[in-house]
Amino acid sequence: MRNSSYTFSQKKVSCLFDASFGDIHTFCKKEKVIIITDDHVYQQHQEKMEGFKVISLTPGEKNKNQQSVDLVIDQLLELETDKQTFIVGVGGGVVTDIAGYAASIFKRGVRLGFVPTSILGMVDAAIGGKNGVDVGIYKNMVGTIYQPEFILYDYSFLDTLPVKEWINGFAEIIKHACIKDALLFSMLERYSLHDIQADSTLIASLIEQNAAIKMEIVTADEYEKADRKLLNFGHTFGHAIENLHELPHGYAVSIGIVAACNLSEKINGLGFDDAQRVVKLLAKYHLPVDIETDYEKVFDVLKLDKKREDDYMHFVLLNKIGEAEAKPVSMNFLHEHIKSIL
Amino acid sequence: MRNSSYTFSQKKVSCLFDASFGDIHTFCKKEKVIIITDDHVYQQHQEKMEGFKVISLTPGEKNKNQQSVDLVIDQLLELETDKQTFIVGVGGGVVTDIAGYAASIFKRGVRLGFVPTSILGMVDAAIGGKNGVDVGIYKNMVGTIYQPEFILYDYSFLDTLPVKEWINGFAEIIKHACIKDALLFSMLERYSLHDIQADSTLIASLIEQNAAIKMEIVTADEYEKADRKLLNFGHTFGHAIENLHELPHGYAVSIGIVAACNLSEKINGLGFDDAQRVVKLLAKYHLPVDIETDYEKVFDVLKLDKKREDDYMHFVLLNKIGEAEAKPVSMNFLHEHIKSIL
Repeated sequence: MRNSSYTFSQKKVSCLFDASFGDIHTFCKKEKVIIITDDHVYQQHQEKMEGFKVISLTPGEKNKNQQSVDLVIDQLLELETDKQTFIVGVGGGVVTDIAGYAASIFKRGVRLGFVPTSILGMVDAAIGGKNGVDVGIYKNMVGTIYQPEFILYDYSFLDTLPVKEWINGFAEIIKHACIKDALLFSMLERYSLHDIQADSTLIASLIEQNAAIKMEIVTADEYEKADRKLLNFGHTFGHAIENLHELPHGYAVSIGIVAACNLSEKINGLGFDDAQRVVKLLAKYHLPVDIETDYEKVFDVLKLDKKREDDYMHFVLLNKIGEAEAKPVSMNFLHEHIKSIL
Repeated sequence: MRNSSYTFSQKKVSCLFDASFGDIHTFCKKEKVIIITDDHVYQQHQEKMEGFKVISLTPGEKNKNQQSVDLVIDQLLELETDKQTFIVGVGGGVVTDIAGYAASIFKRGVRLGFVPTSILGMVDAAIGGKNGVDVGIYKNMVGTIYQPEFILYDYSFLDTLPVKEWINGFAEIIKHACIKDALLFSMLERYSLHDIQADSTLIASLIEQNAAIKMEIVTADEYEKADRKLLNFGHTFGHAIENLHELPHGYAVSIGIVAACNLSEKINGLGFDDAQRVVKLLAKYHLPVDIETDYEKVFDVLKLDKKREDDYMHFVLLNKIGEAEAKPVSMNFLHEHIKSIL
């Protein structure tokens, strides 16, 4: 078990790597914990949560909405939750998003911890405090930035993770490599998903390395005034198609990364070879790299993106593998070229 | 027009006293503003808001709930609101609470300003960033702390304020006097509501003095770790009876202040004379000082109060007029003595 601490504006966040679920007691008394999870995770790991109060959600992005938050709030009231209660989100990105959001607004903020159970949760969603729910097809349109006090990594949850969820998580790992870490990119080129899944030491070090990449960015820029924007790489077109086509988040981001590479070639001088390496790496990890869609519908969703400002979109573009920047791209340009970008 | 600036953890807040509504342009361009108001205020002051995009809510505490927030969110999406949009809440406490909450969660936070139109809004609700909506009879059970960038005081809104709303606002003014300002308390004893209403200079100075009292407390302790707790004086029993009896906020707080004085006499050595002066002053400003209620129902609501921690309630008690402190009081004690306190 290794504990790394990160300091945010209002809170210190402890990352407990290579821990077991029971280590929760180092942060909070069992009777002050309310676990928020989903039915999939709960069915498979019920024995871990024995003796805890549990709120179990219907799984899936479709349920990441205000109705689920309303249900959680009602149950928190029923459980007479006070401000010292620890809400602990145990699950993937959907669960930690809902748990984090509910914890941030209930009584204007109760205590919060995360136990991410998926690759995507461990390397991305549980880190940085961003939470949110969707409004119709608009992703994360409502939410807050609210840090957990701890993130506990129990790798035994990965034993039951379906392969589709492994693939899902690798989109964010490849994203990290693209924007910040050319060495990680090469390493991912050398291995395959199968190699990595078979080697628990490699999994652990990959997760910890990626958690560190994200933590470093978000502690330096908690409220996304600067470098945190880079983490949106692939997420502009990604979010626009995700709920439109009911894609898993990582799959949508993968297609979004390809689109962002195309745009980077067009207007940011990204080399053809680098763009090709990105597409190949995504495909190697079984991620989709194109989609048939209704471009006008995609553009309509794009207009509501959080990164739009009047007639411009703040778009994250690659300079080369391992280096990205955010640039304003006119909405007109995006509209005109959407077919050749996406 | 006088501009006072106050610095919070994430933002600087400008208070523009003795301003006119049109001065909004000093903070934001008209086309980047979305006004949130209610039908009462809009009907009476429509000419001020000409040319602005307006979302008008159904008035009343009954509508300070998630459904109203959902409606606002839908309209913000329809208006293609981006993160640089200024949401400006124009109204009393209910409006600024909903506007502040919606602004804090939409796209994880857009820009925010307030134009309070009631005494209560001007001296209390618009200041300090606390927002929230009710969940059933539970007051402000869900919300955030999110500062506006400006609070604009246009006293001409008070010309149309019903007398009941004047009375409503004086509960918070008397609260400020009780916890922080014995001189203000004596001044309020010398004047009457009628005197004050008739003297626009006096109104302005009273509002600015009270805004300053609250601002000083909340800038020193934005997240309520210390002195900000004192502002909850009268609000524990107050919140418990407010929605149960559908009382105006100030009326409920007035009864809550009397209850807190009774408790302060019992366990904090508050003198009988001081307690009597408080009750007299509330009555002088036409505020109610007692209520017939179902004590068990009140206690049931009390249990969910944000200031409860396990078996204790952090209760704000008076030491003497002008001086208060927060103390844990056991829930059992409150239960046992609720009849003689309330």
